[in-house]
Amino acid sequence: MSPAAPTPAYRRLSVEARRAQLLEAALSLFAHRAPEDVSLDDVAEAAGVSRPLVYRYFPGGKQQLYEAALRSAAEELRNCFDEPHDGPLVPRLARALDRYLAFVDGHDAGFTALLQGGSVVETSRTDAIVDDVRRVAAEHILTHLDVPAPGPRLRMTVRMWITAVEAASLIWLDEGKQPPVEELRDWLVEQFVAMLSVTAARDEQTAALTRRLLSPADD
Amino acid sequence: MSPAAPTPAYRRLSVEARRAQLLEAALSLFAHRAPEDVSLDDVAEAAGVSRPLVYRYFPGGKQQLYEAALRSAAEELRNCFDEPHDGPLVPRLARALDRYLAFVDGHDAGFTALLQGGSVVETSRTDAIVDDVRRVAAEHILTHLDVPAPGPRLRMTVRMWITAVEAASLIWLDEGKQPPVEELRDWLVEQFVAMLSVTAARDEQTAALTRRLLSPADD
Repeated sequence: MSPAAPTPAYRRLSVEARRAQLLEAALSLFAHRAPEDVSLDDVAEAAGVSRPLVYRYFPGGKQQLYEAALRSAAEELRNCFDEPHDGPLVPRLARALDRYLAFVDGHDAGFTALLQGGSVVETSRTDAIVDDVRRVAAEHILTHLDVPAPGPRLRMTVRMWITAVEAASLIWLDEGKQPPVEELRDWLVEQFVAMLSVTAARDEQTAALTRRLLSPADD
Repeated sequence: MSPAAPTPAYRRLSVEARRAQLLEAALSLFAHRAPEDVSLDDVAEAAGVSRPLVYRYFPGGKQQLYEAALRSAAEELRNCFDEPHDGPLVPRLARALDRYLAFVDGHDAGFTALLQGGSVVETSRTDAIVDDVRRVAAEHILTHLDVPAPGPRLRMTVRMWITAVEAASLIWLDEGKQPPVEELRDWLVEQFVAMLSVTAARDEQTAALTRRLLSPADD
């Protein structure tokens, strides 16, 4: 062993803090590059640590690190739709979308790789994480709609819109983040209201919701 | 070699016909079961041939057979949206959706496995096939809309709707094919018109299209 200069920053971190630091370094790399273009050496370098140290915390190597980063990103995405139940519904949805689109903007390549699939480290587990985010987002939105027992047509409409938002986000990234994010957000909110209005013609529960949504004294 | 009774049906098929027969047997199995629940023995049995014969035609085994079946299904799906350019637009779209939903109905488990991912034989190639179907469907729809150079907002709207249709199809299968397929079809057509109408407020090209779409003397 060669004598190494003491690196205080290296030594003073607790296990939890070190793990969080490595995860953050990994997440920022996976955010802007496809998973196959990120190596463990890159993660070690970004975190300013040695490759063996990365392996000590993530013995499963890149796959484990990717999944951990993914779970951390999924947690962040789930929180986007966790909006306080205060004030009119449409602005609440707009605020949730603002956070969601800021996440998309800040994790562009990672978001695309994750949702378009086809990455070399893709597994059924990563698919399950993505599905879970969709499910939680749908549940958050349904609680905001404040309908006691949302029926199949309303649920289907919400899930269709979530998928459409994902598609729009991918296309938005693909087109150099055009149109501007505020315009995209308003457009997506309007799409939601329009989709609910169509469903309202076929479903009394959604019709009551839509009347509430569109009334000026909303909530 | 043990003497076998002559099996004329077995012998008289040409290479092409035999390949098509094996593919059809595979497709009907993959249509109603997850890929991991279909074995080469199942395919051989369904086609009334031996397992070695299946291997002779598909030396890559199940993965090759699955991809070939998938390509054949993708071809069928692409054709759904290849509707003659005659008569009003909305009924054309309804006819295309009828074919699409009939495909979904007839390939339920296979459709779900394919789009939900996470199957053991999933690869970036199968993802690419699915993306290609989406792309071709969007192109078919855009040619029907008869807009010389469709701009980004119109294109994004069409692609958002296609994704929403996929989501609705998956949920429809998941919910025991409810609502009835004709109702689902009409609802999806209405969603398309509503989504275009929202985009129309932000895009002159889509506004002109929507006026044409909604005029009684459409086309």
